[in-house]
Order: sequence, then C-alpha cells, then structure tokens
Amino acid sequence: MSDLEELRDRMRAFTVARDWEKFHDPKSLLLALMGEVGELSELFQWLPADLARDVTQTEPLKTRVGEELSDVLLYLVRLADVLDIDLADAAQRKMDSSESRFSTSDFQGNAPEKN
Amino acid sequence: MSDLEELRDRMRAFTVARDWEKFHDPKSLLLALMGEVGELSELFQWLPADLARDVTQTEPLKTRVGEELSDVLLYLVRLADVLDIDLADAAQRKMDSSESRFSTSDFQGNAPEKN
Amino acid sequence: MSDLEELRDRMRAFTVARDWEKFHDPKSLLLALMGEVGELSELFQWLPADLARDVTQTEPLKTRVGEELSDVLLYLVRLADVLDIDLADAAQRKMDSSESRFSTSDFQGNAPEKN
Amino acid sequence: MSDLEELRDRMRAFTVARDWEKFHDPKSLLLALMGEVGELSELFQWLPADLARDVTQTEPLKTRVGEELSDVLLYLVRLADVLDIDLADAAQRKMDSSESRFSTSDFQGNAPEKN
Repeated sequence: MSDLEELRDRMRAFTVARDWEKFHDPKSLLLALMGEVGELSELFQWLPADLARDVTQTEPLKTRVGEELSDVLLYLVRLADVLDIDLADAAQRKMDSSESRFSTSDFQGNAPEKN
Repeated sequence: MSDLEELRDRMRAFTVARDWEKFHDPKSLLLALMGEVGELSELFQWLPADLARDVTQTEPLKTRVGEELSDVLLYLVRLADVLDIDLADAAQRKMDSSESRFSTSDFQGNAPEKN
Repeated sequence: MSDLEELRDRMRAFTVARDWEKFHDPKSLLLALMGEVGELSELFQWLPADLARDVTQTEPLKTRVGEELSDVLLYLVRLADVLDIDLADAAQRKMDSSESRFSTSDFQGNAPEKN
Repeated sequence: MSDLEELRDRMRAFTVARDWEKFHDPKSLLLALMGEVGELSELFQWLPADLARDVTQTEPLKTRVGEELSDVLLYLVRLADVLDIDLADAAQRKMDSSESRFSTSDFQGNAPEKN
C-alpha cells in the first residue's frame, strides 16, 4: 500500500474511533485545512525570503515545519477520502497535463501566467 | 517508490526542466499553495454544507475538485522537497502523536479544542 | 478622517515605532494575513453550519471572533498602505462594478458562478 | 457614516436585492474570503520579494491588486455584519491592545514571536 493510502486509512480509523465523522463534511474540512495553512504561514512570514530555506533547516524549527506540513497533508488526505477522490491518481494526471501544457521551450526560465 | 516520492520527483524534474527553481523559495511556494486552496474553496463556498459531498460526486465537478486537490498536494510536496523534509515520514509521526494525545475515551463524539 | 484611514495611520505608526517596516514587504504581509485567516477559520471549523452564527453570539467567543476579524483587517489595511492603494475607494468601485455585473433579474436567489 | 459602515450597508443591500442571504452563513463566507485571499496571493506568488511592491505600482497590475484587496475586504465586512460585530470598533481595540503588548523598547527592530 502506498503512503497516501496508508495515511488515508489512518485518518479514517482515527476519525471513526473518536466518532468524529459528523464533523468531517467537506466545507468544515476545508476550514480546518486553512487553519493549518495559516499555522504553516506563520512560521515563515517574517523570515527574509532568501534565507527562509536555510533558517528552517535548524532545530527545533525544522521539526515544527514538518508538523505543520503534515497537518495540511492529513486534512487534504481526509478531504479527498470524504469526497471519494483518489488523490495519488488525480495528482499524477495533473502532472501529465501540466507537463504537456507548459512546454519547456516556451516557458524556460519565465514564470507562467497563472495556469 | 511510494506515491509521495514519485510526485516529489516529478515536481522536481518539472521545475528543473523549465528553469523554475529560482521561483521556488518557501514563501513563494506558500503563496502558490494559498492560491490553490483558494481555488478549491471557491468550488465549495456556496454549496449547502449537508449536500456538499453528494453534489461533488457528479461530473464535471468531481474531476474539477480532483484537479484542485492535486494542485494543493503538488505545491505541498514541492515545498516539503525544497525544505528537505520527508513528508510521508513527518505525517506518519504526526498520526502517532495525534493518536496518543486524543484518547478515544476523552474525546468520543466531541470535537477537540484546537490541537 | 474615515475609519479605514485611521486604522491605516495607526498601523503605520505602530510599525515605524518598532522599526518593523523592513518586515512589511507585500509577500510577507500576505503570509501574515493568511495566518490570521487561519486563526479565524479555526474558530468556526467544527461548528455546525446552521448554528455557527448563533453560537458565536455568546461570550467569550464573540470577542475572540472580533479579535481575529480585526487581525485580518489590520494586515489588509497595512498591505494596501504599503502598496499605495486607497482601500476604501477601491472597495466602493468594486461594489459599483458588482452591482452592474450581477443584475438582480438574472441572479435572484441563485448563487453566481465564480465572478 | 464611516467607510466601513457604508461598505457594510452596500454589501447588505447587494445581498438582499439578489436574495442571497441564505448563502451567507459564516462558514460559507469564510470559504469565499479564502477564495479571494487565494486570488490575491496568485498576483504576488512569483514576484521577487524585494521588487513586489514596485512591480505592483504599474498598470494594469495595480488596479487588479486593488480589486482583489477589495474582494477580501468586502467579504470580511459582510462576515462581520452577519456576526453582528462592529469591525471598526474591534480593530481600534485590537490596536490599543497591540500597542501596549509590544512595547517599543522590547521589540525595536526584531520581529515578534507570533502574537
């Protein structure tokens, strides 16, 4: 079993064991996802842009960042599960589509207009 | 190779082939992630909360939702990669920690205070 | 002086007095705004959609919500100021434009497709 | 009447005229707010941090940014109204509180830990 499927199953079991399915409608999960994106943003907001990566290589910050990235991933996985969407498959198809849309010759070095 | 690692490698190759590494500092990736969370939110904002799940089982909406979930995942995977964080591992550890923090006897059926 | 201008001036003075202008580039302010939108979302995420309004009329929650709404507003005001954009004026013009785009006869009772 | 009150009244009338009150529960408005924060983020995501301000002084980008800032403000104003919260007053009180919490002598030049 792949890691996204494992995480999906762990989140499902975690939710059911606490009788929390009723809280997990899509709009509520989206707000919870936003809460975690907000916590992740707060770790970076005042870091100088060019040093942000290096600064977050030190502990305890690196572990903190890993926890917040995980929180975002776990709500995303849970949301996909509730919506009956195969997240890994959808993401692979999105990569296929992005690879053909943004031909390397056209876009070399220049940021795309919003896709 | 697991799916998160495959997606990480595809995003890495996609970025390098277009010479886009210079755009991928953590703060910029976080803003791009927010852009996609916003697009995902827009698909749900006016749906009645109790019908949101069912309404999004129909096409073309279900495919649209899958694409936006993918966009969020792909930027999250890219951000973790740029920060040298093993996302699958961090998420598994976060599940370990959540499972012990929120004992089923204490939390059965009641939403937690923000963790 | 209008309230948006007063808040703009207070945020400006607050920032300068602490020598924090260097942190207030637009991308950093956007991440700070996201942090506050996340905190606001967390207050609502598990509330039932149809009771969310009433539940947040009680204290201490109502004051908490007011604080988080304020945090979002203050970063938005600060961001507009740094970008030299008259926020009140831009918003009035946006209302003018929305009022003509969404004619009441066409949209009565039906949510718009994303504008 | 102050500008925040005017915008509140315009959003209220706009909503009622189209029979859209039923869509404006707090959680839905929060998702709409996230949608607009996402659109704002997309305008900045690939701009170099140190040039973001100057780049957005040119047209048509400056007007675009003003429109997105407005969209965020208008949903924030609408959300405060639905929650019966005086946004201007709450924000002034928040400034009072921030001014005493972050004494200039302690914080001069150093970014605060998340407040």
